[in-house]
Amino acid sequence: MNPVRKKFSRRVRVAVGGGVLAVVAVAGFGAVTANASAPAAPPTAAAAPAAASVPDRATTTSTHLTVDAATKAAQAALDAAEKEKQRVSVAVVDRNGNTIVTLRGDGAGPQSYESAERKAYTAVSWNAPTSELAGRLQQTPTLKDIPGTLFLAGAVPVTAGNAPIAGIGVAGAPSGVLDEKFAQAGADAVAR
Amino acid sequence: MNPVRKKFSRRVRVAVGGGVLAVVAVAGFGAVTANASAPAAPPTAAAAPAAASVPDRATTTSTHLTVDAATKAAQAALDAAEKEKQRVSVAVVDRNGNTIVTLRGDGAGPQSYESAERKAYTAVSWNAPTSELAGRLQQTPTLKDIPGTLFLAGAVPVTAGNAPIAGIGVAGAPSGVLDEKFAQAGADAVAR
Amino acid sequence: MNPVRKKFSRRVRVAVGGGVLAVVAVAGFGAVTANASAPAAPPTAAAAPAAASVPDRATTTSTHLTVDAATKAAQAALDAAEKEKQRVSVAVVDRNGNTIVTLRGDGAGPQSYESAERKAYTAVSWNAPTSELAGRLQQTPTLKDIPGTLFLAGAVPVTAGNAPIAGIGVAGAPSGVLDEKFAQAGADAVAR
Amino acid sequence: MNPVRKKFSRRVRVAVGGGVLAVVAVAGFGAVTANASAPAAPPTAAAAPAAASVPDRATTTSTHLTVDAATKAAQAALDAAEKEKQRVSVAVVDRNGNTIVTLRGDGAGPQSYESAERKAYTAVSWNAPTSELAGRLQQTPTLKDIPGTLFLAGAVPVTAGNAPIAGIGVAGAPSGVLDEKFAQAGADAVAR
Amino acid sequence: MNPVRKKFSRRVRVAVGGGVLAVVAVAGFGAVTANASAPAAPPTAAAAPAAASVPDRATTTSTHLTVDAATKAAQAALDAAEKEKQRVSVAVVDRNGNTIVTLRGDGAGPQSYESAERKAYTAVSWNAPTSELAGRLQQTPTLKDIPGTLFLAGAVPVTAGNAPIAGIGVAGAPSGVLDEKFAQAGADAVAR
Amino acid sequence: MNPVRKKFSRRVRVAVGGGVLAVVAVAGFGAVTANASAPAAPPTAAAAPAAASVPDRATTTSTHLTVDAATKAAQAALDAAEKEKQRVSVAVVDRNGNTIVTLRGDGAGPQSYESAERKAYTAVSWNAPTSELAGRLQQTPTLKDIPGTLFLAGAVPVTAGNAPIAGIGVAGAPSGVLDEKFAQAGADAVAR
Amino acid sequence: MNPVRKKFSRRVRVAVGGGVLAVVAVAGFGAVTANASAPAAPPTAAAAPAAASVPDRATTTSTHLTVDAATKAAQAALDAAEKEKQRVSVAVVDRNGNTIVTLRGDGAGPQSYESAERKAYTAVSWNAPTSELAGRLQQTPTLKDIPGTLFLAGAVPVTAGNAPIAGIGVAGAPSGVLDEKFAQAGADAVAR
Amino acid sequence: MNPVRKKFSRRVRVAVGGGVLAVVAVAGFGAVTANASAPAAPPTAAAAPAAASVPDRATTTSTHLTVDAATKAAQAALDAAEKEKQRVSVAVVDRNGNTIVTLRGDGAGPQSYESAERKAYTAVSWNAPTSELAGRLQQTPTLKDIPGTLFLAGAVPVTAGNAPIAGIGVAGAPSGVLDEKFAQAGADAVAR
Repeated sequence: MNPVRKKFSRRVRVAVGGGVLAVVAVAGFGAVTANASAPAAPPTAAAAPAAASVPDRATTTSTHLTVDAATKAAQAALDAAEKEKQRVSVAVVDRNGNTIVTLRGDGAGPQSYESAERKAYTAVSWNAPTSELAGRLQQTPTLKDIPGTLFLAGAVPVTAGNAPIAGIGVAGAPSGVLDEKFAQAGADAVAR
Repeated sequence: MNPVRKKFSRRVRVAVGGGVLAVVAVAGFGAVTANASAPAAPPTAAAAPAAASVPDRATTTSTHLTVDAATKAAQAALDAAEKEKQRVSVAVVDRNGNTIVTLRGDGAGPQSYESAERKAYTAVSWNAPTSELAGRLQQTPTLKDIPGTLFLAGAVPVTAGNAPIAGIGVAGAPSGVLDEKFAQAGADAVAR
Repeated sequence: MNPVRKKFSRRVRVAVGGGVLAVVAVAGFGAVTANASAPAAPPTAAAAPAAASVPDRATTTSTHLTVDAATKAAQAALDAAEKEKQRVSVAVVDRNGNTIVTLRGDGAGPQSYESAERKAYTAVSWNAPTSELAGRLQQTPTLKDIPGTLFLAGAVPVTAGNAPIAGIGVAGAPSGVLDEKFAQAGADAVAR
Repeated sequence: MNPVRKKFSRRVRVAVGGGVLAVVAVAGFGAVTANASAPAAPPTAAAAPAAASVPDRATTTSTHLTVDAATKAAQAALDAAEKEKQRVSVAVVDRNGNTIVTLRGDGAGPQSYESAERKAYTAVSWNAPTSELAGRLQQTPTLKDIPGTLFLAGAVPVTAGNAPIAGIGVAGAPSGVLDEKFAQAGADAVAR
Repeated sequence: MNPVRKKFSRRVRVAVGGGVLAVVAVAGFGAVTANASAPAAPPTAAAAPAAASVPDRATTTSTHLTVDAATKAAQAALDAAEKEKQRVSVAVVDRNGNTIVTLRGDGAGPQSYESAERKAYTAVSWNAPTSELAGRLQQTPTLKDIPGTLFLAGAVPVTAGNAPIAGIGVAGAPSGVLDEKFAQAGADAVAR
Repeated sequence: MNPVRKKFSRRVRVAVGGGVLAVVAVAGFGAVTANASAPAAPPTAAAAPAAASVPDRATTTSTHLTVDAATKAAQAALDAAEKEKQRVSVAVVDRNGNTIVTLRGDGAGPQSYESAERKAYTAVSWNAPTSELAGRLQQTPTLKDIPGTLFLAGAVPVTAGNAPIAGIGVAGAPSGVLDEKFAQAGADAVAR
Repeated sequence: MNPVRKKFSRRVRVAVGGGVLAVVAVAGFGAVTANASAPAAPPTAAAAPAAASVPDRATTTSTHLTVDAATKAAQAALDAAEKEKQRVSVAVVDRNGNTIVTLRGDGAGPQSYESAERKAYTAVSWNAPTSELAGRLQQTPTLKDIPGTLFLAGAVPVTAGNAPIAGIGVAGAPSGVLDEKFAQAGADAVAR
Repeated sequence: MNPVRKKFSRRVRVAVGGGVLAVVAVAGFGAVTANASAPAAPPTAAAAPAAASVPDRATTTSTHLTVDAATKAAQAALDAAEKEKQRVSVAVVDRNGNTIVTLRGDGAGPQSYESAERKAYTAVSWNAPTSELAGRLQQTPTLKDIPGTLFLAGAVPVTAGNAPIAGIGVAGAPSGVLDEKFAQAGADAVAR
């Protein structure tokens, strides 16, 4: 069972027994993301513990934008900005807080890149456009002190079945209203 | 379609139309993780963009340890250490690099907490015990310069169907071999 | 005298003499948290200074939550949130500012993890719930500029005999009032 | 039961009941380290959770150098260096990883301050002089990648009954051997 | 003269005189990347200094990959990896050290994102593939201590007329040789 | 085509073919900024990918202050401050967000150095004096939460043909009005 | 001419000629703060550049608190707090922004250590008590966004002939007024 | 007595009495580096402590490069590089570890700026060229783990009477030997 394969089957779990076997399994796993040209070292009997394969009841599943969809969204946001001759940066941030795609537009201001990321992070964290979230600061001003956030118009969430799975953030236009319009264009591109 | 619900159906997607509707949807979503006591502000027609709900083809799915399983694993690792009168810290790190559970054991050295996290991060990143990964440095010494990693024995990966979904890291015992034995005990506790 | 042993006697101090002896003592100390598989190197006469063992008058004693109690509290806070179908993260921070336990709940927003830690840090630093501390900003707004703090409802202190020994922080629910209710449930679980 | 008072009694725990009472207790606690000139706000019945006072079984106790002893040690280390016309910085780090005392000596190099802190952190983490710990890198070279450490001669641990409670670090002399000699002089000053 | 417009004319400089005029110029500049919905405040006569427009002799010109070309390159690198069923992240870094495009591939390990960025940064800084640069460490091992770098195979520079203008970095495959093959595919896609 | 040469020709592109040739090209490039005394290693046929030289359509061009002009501006700002017996620091930041020149004036306060950098960064990002930008916070207060910015009077942008290419920031005088007057003197020095 | 010796003579400059001589001078300088047990390597004729000794006209002189005076001040501040049964931390920060002395008082809250440092940094930067500086935020609220500062009562500057040479900061008491009273006691102790 | 004025008199100390007077003194001090347009607020009798002016025995004096000399040195280093058609960055770092001057040369690689700073920091910390210091790593390899350092050829110290007062660092040339030659040219320019 590969956690990121799109065809998803809950039947594939294989209980892995001891340390030696596990390492063999790793070595035989074609697409493992290890980064080393060396072949896996032969395990010593005592020291190499096994990778534990867990049963279904120990796992949960989460939905993410594919990188293809995220790239499409980011590109659409950038295109929308360029159509209005605005120089912006775009970021797509996943539900787990990781940035998936960034595009630093030609001539975008230096502050736009990280602004776009933080706006996207904020939109996915609270599942709302940052233009709306900025309004919540009137009642709860310290929300904006949460690390990684930016309560400034310019980002919208992307949902799958009502739940947030990503945020799209844009920064660099003369106003956040404009930024958010471009972000929305990005979101629309993957909603179709 | 809630990305984290355990019963998982691919049928639930609801196309969300315009901006106003989307915000209503957000306000009506009971368990959304927004953090504000204020009710959602009524959207202004012009400024508030909609959350875009995406079709299945735009998403992928990933498998994670539940927090319950991760806690069970961490506790088992700590128990194993305490049984041998070792003072350690334990961390479980998810496939996306986020820390899920940490336990700073009573009397564990100050360096143990972040060491455990980094070992766990390393084990899940390369899907191998860190004792084995440390050996790869002989051929590729700069692997250890990757931010967030620690190539020191003491962590093992947890897999679901051969693919890594988490790492369990332990630090604080007099040797990495011991640390990794405790980490393995944690992994075994959720593999059963 | 082990500083973290639960049975506590002030009689155990042993004056350690010279450099060589001290290193031997270290090597013979079963549970020392050194992390190396190598046996301690034999000290060279000139270079290796001694560990100095200090008399009682040079020491003070502080009280901490055990990791078992902290885990129980964190788990109770998470359970309380799950009972209300809220997705949150929980953190327990010690009086010395170190995080003892973290639990990232299934589906909790990415911002919740560090928020929970900072709320807990704030609650233990000022020995008050963060809902109350947020109110103090009206008179002293720059309190919130102190590094590591978050003046947002959601954390409560844990005391031993009126003095703060830990903070429990929760983040991710739609309001800080809810977060703090769950944090309080965590605190109650260890107060019984 | 105040966790840092020197006269230590295990009898003092007072079970604190509801939210309102707890806040009153806080307001009446003379030496609480809250930093605000405002009187504690009157709690609202619903929102303000109580500080939970925990029973003895939920707590553990740790031993620390007093700030007076730590200052004495640091001063003695500095004096020893000045006697040999060496310009150094000195740091004392607690068992929980917090720096207790720092002294930047007149004319000490800019790198000496943080070096002294990291050496002290390393010595207390592994309960050994850093001159000895540097030797362990031959067998376990990645030990030095643990954040916050510096495996360079110049620090010694301070123990209470064989267990490490602090590290004293010195940096800035022409050799680590000299630095460690001064650190040892600091440790000796509190061992008497 | 717009510094990022593709049609480039050296005739456009307009000497801006006093403070008031300058601010008007700013307010009238359609595509300026200011981020505020407010119209520019009317300048007070005394306080608002002018933006100084400089003559050609005070400027130099640099060449950059367009965001379109950078996206094309990154996408080609990702495609090449997916064709071999490898899960990787890709980054394109500009000659000024700024990241232009990132793509976190589906299922790529958590360590791959920042690794790809650092590899790309390294390749553009020294205008060589990182596989070659890693070899330079044998003679100059401390090169790898330069902040932001990663001397690990997987990145290639992109040049315009022999001079480096960007680096393309890939991380996440089982070996750096593979990573660099994909990075090269990305570079080739824009060289045609 | 060298991206930073002042005489600029769009004809210079040379298509670079395979891996081996490219590395030779690198080795033969006299002024490449690689930092290693070693001669470039002979490329192995398989592993060393080529640097890709891109066609004009893949590139864009940006205008920067020369380091000579930036130094002249910074020096003029410092001179203006010293004429009024003010102790300040000065920074010039490029359109890409990189600091080009800094001068820490004799006796300037410790906070002045980074303040000057951040002010300059802010002025170039929004192409306006920071005295004006500070006023925008009344309508959009969270602008100031963008990382790297400081919305405090004391910096002015430098433009080439209406577009911002750098910011000059000054800090350390008793008022931001004074700081900005000196920054303006710096900008004027290169506008002539 | 040693820059930190108290007896200060402007006659001592020695013009150092070539590379070889300079290195010899370094090796013969008893108290140089190099940190290495190795004797200085014999310089190779070609590679080792000389240390340049500069004439008086190239230098300026600054006045600092001695570490002895700074320790005395910090201790006096801590004593004043303990006399009122307050648990605080104390920091002394130099005019160049470097921390000279820190004392973490027994039982001081975890937030107090860095708060004390930042308050002291703020007081010396603006040569005023932080209680007064906090008031300046009403007119210039973004002053508090300058990195390293904390505009919260509790620190006072120390001057030598009207110019600030250090700041003393205290944190941890229930109010900043109290903190600043203790800081003042520290300053008074060295003013006598 | 102003700590940075070049004409230096030890007679100027003025004992400052109470809180009110001190604030007046501050307000009347023309060149104080406070950054606020507001006039000093009238002190409240109770809260505003006095700045303490200390006697000579509490102070020490240090020698620094003037910013004019540092700029001259940096410029000379850059000129030397440009004469050999090398693109480099230059930094001058003070004995207290603060950067005094930076120049990012036209077309210098992105890694050169911080490299130059760290090399300069290293040279002044150990009073030796970094080419020599790099050699010390053979005996003491962990020296290079000290934060802020870079043990790579390219920097030389500047001394006043044998004692280090600054370091000049250069980075970006194809070899550290070249970098250090340019740094030496900078140092020579102020030694004359």
